[in-house]
Amino acid sequence: MIKINENYLKLQAGYLFPEISKRVNEFSKNNPTAKIIRLGIGDVVKPLSNTVVKAFHDGVQELADAKSFKGYGPENGYGFLRDAIIENEFKGLGIEADEIFISDGSKCDSGNIIEIFGQSNKIAVSDPVYPVYVDTNVMAGKTGASDGKGKYAGLIYMTCNEENNFIPLPPKERADLIYLCSPNNPTGAAMDKNTLKVWVEYALKNKSVILFDAAYERYISQKDIPHSIFEIEGAKDCAIEFRSFSKTAGFTGVRCGFIVIPKRLKGYTESGAEHSIHALWNRRHATKFNGASYPVQKAAAAIYTAEGKKETDEIIRFYMENAKIISEGLKAKGLTVYGGTNAPYVWLKTPGLTSWAFFDKLLSECNVVGTPGSGFGPSGEGFFRLSAFGHRENILEAIERIKTKLNI
Amino acid sequence: MIKINENYLKLQAGYLFPEISKRVNEFSKNNPTAKIIRLGIGDVVKPLSNTVVKAFHDGVQELADAKSFKGYGPENGYGFLRDAIIENEFKGLGIEADEIFISDGSKCDSGNIIEIFGQSNKIAVSDPVYPVYVDTNVMAGKTGASDGKGKYAGLIYMTCNEENNFIPLPPKERADLIYLCSPNNPTGAAMDKNTLKVWVEYALKNKSVILFDAAYERYISQKDIPHSIFEIEGAKDCAIEFRSFSKTAGFTGVRCGFIVIPKRLKGYTESGAEHSIHALWNRRHATKFNGASYPVQKAAAAIYTAEGKKETDEIIRFYMENAKIISEGLKAKGLTVYGGTNAPYVWLKTPGLTSWAFFDKLLSECNVVGTPGSGFGPSGEGFFRLSAFGHRENILEAIERIKTKLNI
Repeated sequence: MIKINENYLKLQAGYLFPEISKRVNEFSKNNPTAKIIRLGIGDVVKPLSNTVVKAFHDGVQELADAKSFKGYGPENGYGFLRDAIIENEFKGLGIEADEIFISDGSKCDSGNIIEIFGQSNKIAVSDPVYPVYVDTNVMAGKTGASDGKGKYAGLIYMTCNEENNFIPLPPKERADLIYLCSPNNPTGAAMDKNTLKVWVEYALKNKSVILFDAAYERYISQKDIPHSIFEIEGAKDCAIEFRSFSKTAGFTGVRCGFIVIPKRLKGYTESGAEHSIHALWNRRHATKFNGASYPVQKAAAAIYTAEGKKETDEIIRFYMENAKIISEGLKAKGLTVYGGTNAPYVWLKTPGLTSWAFFDKLLSECNVVGTPGSGFGPSGEGFFRLSAFGHRENILEAIERIKTKLNI
Repeated sequence: MIKINENYLKLQAGYLFPEISKRVNEFSKNNPTAKIIRLGIGDVVKPLSNTVVKAFHDGVQELADAKSFKGYGPENGYGFLRDAIIENEFKGLGIEADEIFISDGSKCDSGNIIEIFGQSNKIAVSDPVYPVYVDTNVMAGKTGASDGKGKYAGLIYMTCNEENNFIPLPPKERADLIYLCSPNNPTGAAMDKNTLKVWVEYALKNKSVILFDAAYERYISQKDIPHSIFEIEGAKDCAIEFRSFSKTAGFTGVRCGFIVIPKRLKGYTESGAEHSIHALWNRRHATKFNGASYPVQKAAAAIYTAEGKKETDEIIRFYMENAKIISEGLKAKGLTVYGGTNAPYVWLKTPGLTSWAFFDKLLSECNVVGTPGSGFGPSGEGFFRLSAFGHRENILEAIERIKTKLNI
C-alpha cells in the first residue's frame, strides 16, 4: 500500500492568495461595474527590455541551426552567465564563478535548499515571513504541528514589529539554519551593515548557516544597505545567498535565478565530521535539475550589458516611483507607512482594524486589492501590504480613491 | 551547528559519466590526432524545427510588449499547452487537462516526485536502471547503505537480462512504489500491452503506485507497444506518467516536460486514511515551482500543430534510421544486439568482455565512445549502450570503424 508524506497534512488549508481571490471574485459578482485595481500579488507588469528581448531571440535562433544548436547545458549554468554575474554583482567580494548555481527561479531554490540539510537542525524564520520558507519545511517534516494561529511547532519565530523596525535580531536560543530576507517581502524593511554583522557573528559562533534571500536587492536606494551578505566579513563561512531576475528584470514568466554557495562553507554530520555544503548542493543540482533554458540564460546575461543595465535601472526607477506615490499618498491620508524605500512593497499599519477587515474595507470602499499582513504570520496582524508593481495610471487612481473614498 | 543530510554520504562516488570523460580525456591526450566519435550520452543534435522556433520567437516577442506581457503563469502550466497535450497524446483515454502538470523537464519531475510519498514505502527499480531514480531515493533517505557493487539496501531490484528480454516483471514481494521506464533507457526494451496489464493488476492488488517514465514513447515503432500506461484499464487508479519534450522535439537545452496524475489516484496514511495524490503534487508544485518559462511553453505547444507534428516525426525518423544503421552494422560484425526498434538506444552484448573492457577496446581501436552497461547497475555488466543521437556521417563512420577495426 502506497503511503503518502503525512507532513503535507500539517499544512494549513487556507492559503493567503486563494482566499484573496475568493473575496475579490465574490465582490466582483455583487458589484459588476466596479473597476478593481489589484496591488496584491507582487508581479511585474513592465515588458522585458529591448536588449533582453534581442538576446532572448538570439538564443532561440541559435537553437534553429545545427551549427550553433545546444542540447543539455551545464547543470549549474553557462559560464557566460556565471561570469557576468561575478563581474557585475560580486566584484571584489572574492566569489568565484563556480560558486554560482543558475536555476529556473528563486522560489525553487529557496524551497529545495533544505534537502541538503539534516532533520535535527533548529530553524529560525521571521514573523511575518514569505510563506515558501515555512511551508517547504513543514512538507519536509522539519516542523511539528500547526498551532492553528499561523505557527508550527519546532520553528523559532523572530517577531518583526514597529519596535524593532521589522528587522529580526538573533534569537536567544541556538538556531542552526536562519532565513533572512532583505530587502524584505512583505515588510519592505532592509538590513543595514551593522545588523548583518551581528547576524554573521552569531552564525559563525554557532556554526549556523544563514539563507540570505536578496531577491529584491536591486530596489535598495540607501547607501548603508548591503546588496549582498558577502559584503560582510566572515559571511563566506556562514551564508548562502539567493538572487532572482524576476523582479530585477521582469523575469517572473521567464524563470531564472541563482544561488551563491561559497566553497569554504561547511556543514557537519551528527558526529561532527566536516563536509562541503557546496559539494552537497552540486550533487543535488546535478541529480535533480538539468540546467535553465539556454535562451533564458542568454536573455539573463543581457541584463549585464551596458544597454541592459540602463534599461533595467529605468524599470526599477519606475516601480520605485510607484512606491513613492503610494507611500506619500497613504501618509497624506494620515496612515502610518513602512517600507517602500529599499523595496517595491509598502507596509502600512491598518487604522484600528484587523488586516482582513482592512482588506474588505479597501475593497468595498475603493475597489483596491492588497494583501493582509496577517497572511504572512501572526505578527503581520494589523498590517497590510501594497505592491508597487503596477501601471502608473492604476497606482495614481488607487491612491486617489484611497484619499477621497476610504472612510477612516 | 548546521547538520547536513547524511544520506548524501551513501551515494557512490564514481558516477558513470565523469568516469567516461576521464578515460576519454586521457585517451585524447595520448592520441591527439584521433578523431573521436561520441555515442555515449543521450543528447540530441538536430536543431529545433521551424514551427517550434517560430512559436518560441513569438512567445519571446509577446514579453516585449506591455499589452501581451506575461508575468507569473499558472504553476501547473498554461491551458493552451495542457489542452494540446490532452488532444494529441491522450485523446480517448479519459485524462483531463488539469491532470497534466507542466514542468521544466523530466529529470526534475522524476527526482521530485518522491517528496509526496512516505518514508516506509518499499521501492522497486529495474537493474540496469536510469541512475536518477535510485540516487534521488538515496538522497531522500529512502534506502540503506550501498553494497559497494551498485546496489543499495532496502530497494527491490528487478533484474533485466536476456532471459526476460530486459522486461521487468512484478517481484514476489510487495512493492509500494515501482519505477518502470518504457521504452527503456538504457536497454531500449519496450513493454507490450500484456506485460503492462500484469503490472497494473499487481499495482491495483497491492495498492501500489507505478511511476511510468515514457520519455522515449515517440520512438515506438511496433503497434502492440502502448505509448501511455493509461491505455491499460485500471491504470488511472495506480499510475503516474512522465513525459518529456527533450527527445521528442530536441528540448534538452530548452527544458520542458510534464507528468500526468489522475485525480482518482489515491495514497494512504500509515493508519489507512485515503488521500488524493493529485492534491499532494498540486501543493508541492505550487509551493516549490513557479511554472515553466512562457516562451518555452509556447514552443512546446507548437509541436502539436500540423506542421510541428510533421517536422517532429521527421526528426524522430532520422534518429531511428541511425539506430537501424548501428543495429545492422553491429549484427553484421557478429555482435548480439538488443533495442534500437522502439528506442534510440542500441544495447549490445559485449563479446566476452566486461562493459568497461569493451569501452576501452572500442575507444582505442575505433575511437568510438559509448556507455558501459555496468554503469546502470550490476545486471548491465557485459552490455554496452550506443546512442542513436548523432549526425549521420558520424554514425556511418563509427559503424565503418567498428566493422573494419574492432578486433573481436
